[in-house]
Amino acid sequence: MTEKRLLIISGTHGNEINPIWAVKKFKKLSSFDINNSNLEFTVGNPNACDKGLRYIDVDLNRSFNVKKTSNSSEFYEVRRAEYLLNQFGINGSRPCHVAIDLHTTTSSMGTSIVMYGRRKKDFYLAAVLQNKFGLPIYLHEKDQKQTGFLVEAWPSGLVIEIGPVAQNHYDSRIVERFLMILHFLKNIISDLKNLEINLPEEVNVFVHQKSIDYPRDANEIINALIHPDRINKDWEIIKKGDPLFLDIYGKTIIYDEDELSYPVFIGEAAYREKRIAMSFTKKEIIKCSKDWIEEFLI
Amino acid sequence: MTEKRLLIISGTHGNEINPIWAVKKFKKLSSFDINNSNLEFTVGNPNACDKGLRYIDVDLNRSFNVKKTSNSSEFYEVRRAEYLLNQFGINGSRPCHVAIDLHTTTSSMGTSIVMYGRRKKDFYLAAVLQNKFGLPIYLHEKDQKQTGFLVEAWPSGLVIEIGPVAQNHYDSRIVERFLMILHFLKNIISDLKNLEINLPEEVNVFVHQKSIDYPRDANEIINALIHPDRINKDWEIIKKGDPLFLDIYGKTIIYDEDELSYPVFIGEAAYREKRIAMSFTKKEIIKCSKDWIEEFLI
Repeated sequence: MTEKRLLIISGTHGNEINPIWAVKKFKKLSSFDINNSNLEFTVGNPNACDKGLRYIDVDLNRSFNVKKTSNSSEFYEVRRAEYLLNQFGINGSRPCHVAIDLHTTTSSMGTSIVMYGRRKKDFYLAAVLQNKFGLPIYLHEKDQKQTGFLVEAWPSGLVIEIGPVAQNHYDSRIVERFLMILHFLKNIISDLKNLEINLPEEVNVFVHQKSIDYPRDANEIINALIHPDRINKDWEIIKKGDPLFLDIYGKTIIYDEDELSYPVFIGEAAYREKRIAMSFTKKEIIKCSKDWIEEFLI
Repeated sequence: MTEKRLLIISGTHGNEINPIWAVKKFKKLSSFDINNSNLEFTVGNPNACDKGLRYIDVDLNRSFNVKKTSNSSEFYEVRRAEYLLNQFGINGSRPCHVAIDLHTTTSSMGTSIVMYGRRKKDFYLAAVLQNKFGLPIYLHEKDQKQTGFLVEAWPSGLVIEIGPVAQNHYDSRIVERFLMILHFLKNIISDLKNLEINLPEEVNVFVHQKSIDYPRDANEIINALIHPDRINKDWEIIKKGDPLFLDIYGKTIIYDEDELSYPVFIGEAAYREKRIAMSFTKKEIIKCSKDWIEEFLI
C-alpha cells in the first residue's frame, strides 16, 4: 500500500463560491501542517472565479477529454485542464491519486455525491461517505452528450454537489456542510494504514438513464417550466401521470413514461444552455465488495 | 380623474428571469385585448437578458438619474434608461403614470414591496397591496450611495421583489406569485372609476436606516460570511448580541448596536459588488390617509 495523495478542487465553476470559501476556512482552521500533508488544493478556474462566471470559453468540467486542436487550444478551459493535469494528475509534478471536486447547484439536491462510471475505487469512497453521512449518490454513466468531467481524469474521484444555493451567493450553512466532508476525507486519507474496512453491506445509487429538455415552441423557445409540484423535488419518485411541466398557457404536461424514475438536477440554472431540464435516474442497490477497498489501497 | 396607464417592467436585471416569464404568461392568458388596455409592458434590459447577466455596463436600476456626459453616454444602460423614459415616461410617446418594476432576489425576502421615498401615490398602491396580500414594505430613503432607481423616474411606482431564487433559475412557484400581483394590479388600474377606497387603517413599513458591508481583512478581502443563524432571516428582528457574521477562523461577530433592527436583503448575491451584506431597517407604523388615494386619482 502506497500513500495516497488527495486533490481538493474548488471553483471548477467560477460562480460556485461556497466551496472556495470552505477550502479557505478549512486551511485556516487546520491544526496540521498542510504543506507537509498528503492534501493538495487548487482552484479549478481562477479566471472564471474573478469574473463570477461559470466559465470563460467552455465548461471546464466538460473539458478533460477535449482533443487539442488549433481551435480548441484557444479555449482557456482546455488549456487550464491540461495545466491541472500537468500539475496534479497522476503523472504530474505533484501527483494526486484521488480528486474531490466541490460543486454547488441551484437544484434542491441536498448534500450529494456524483460518481462517473463504475470504478471500484470510487465505489469505495462513495460507500464510505454514504455510510457516514447518508448522502445520496448519482451515478452518471452512458451519457454520450456529457463527457470530459474533471474527476474522470484521475484514477479515482468524486464530485460533492450541494444545493440549493444561488450562484455567487454565500451561504455559511452550505460552507459548514462542505467543511464536514473535508474533515472526514482528510481523516480517511491521512490514516490509510489504520483504516478499518468500514464498508456497509450495500450502497444505494441513483443511476443516470437520460436527460430531458424543456418543452419548446416551433422557434425553439422554451414554452413550459418545471411544474410547481415537481420543482425542488430532486430524488423523489415520479410515476406515470405525475405533473412534470406547466406550459405558458397554464396547461400541465405530465410524466408519460411507464418506468418509475427519480429526477435529479431539476431546473439547475446552468444546465438550461445544455438543454437539460432534469435528469432521470433509476434506483439500484449494489452489494459492497471487499475488492473496492483493496483496489483503493493499491 | 384621468385614466391611468400602468407600465409593467420585467428584466430590468437580465438574470432575473422569472418576472419575464410571468409577464409572457400574463399576456398569453389575458382574456382582454392587451393592445387596447391601459397596460404597457417592456423588458428593461434586453441585452443583459440575452446574456443572462444583471447588466452590460452599469446597473440599469441605478441609472435613472445619471447625468449624460460623453463618458456615461457610452454605457448601454444609461442610453437604455433614456430610451425607456422617451417611450414610457410621463412625457414619453406612450406615457405611463405608474411603473411597476418586477425583480427577484437571492435573499429570503418572500414576496415584498420596495418603495422609494414617501410619495403619497406610492403609499396608496403599497397600502392596497399590503392590505390584500399582507406583503411587507421596505421603504428605501435617505441613502446617498444608492440612487437612480427606475420607478423614481415615474410619477408613481413600486418594485415587487420576490425571493429567494437563484439568478437565471426558473421557479414556477415564483412565477405564480408574480401573476397574482399582476392580475390584481390590472384590476385596480382598469377600474379606477369603481374603485372603492379600500385602504386599511395603517401600513407597516420597514424604513431603511443603513447598509453594512461584509467584514474585510487588511487587503479588503471579505473574511466573514453572514452567520448561519442569520442567513435567510430577512424581516426578523435582530438585537444587540445576536450573531451577525461568522469569520474565516470560525469566530462569531455579533450585532453590537443598541437599536433593534430588521435586516433585509441579507446576503443578496448582486449586492456584494456594492459592498452591501445586508440593510438594516426600522419598523414604522403609518396611518393611512385619504390624501393618498386622492393624490393617486388626480
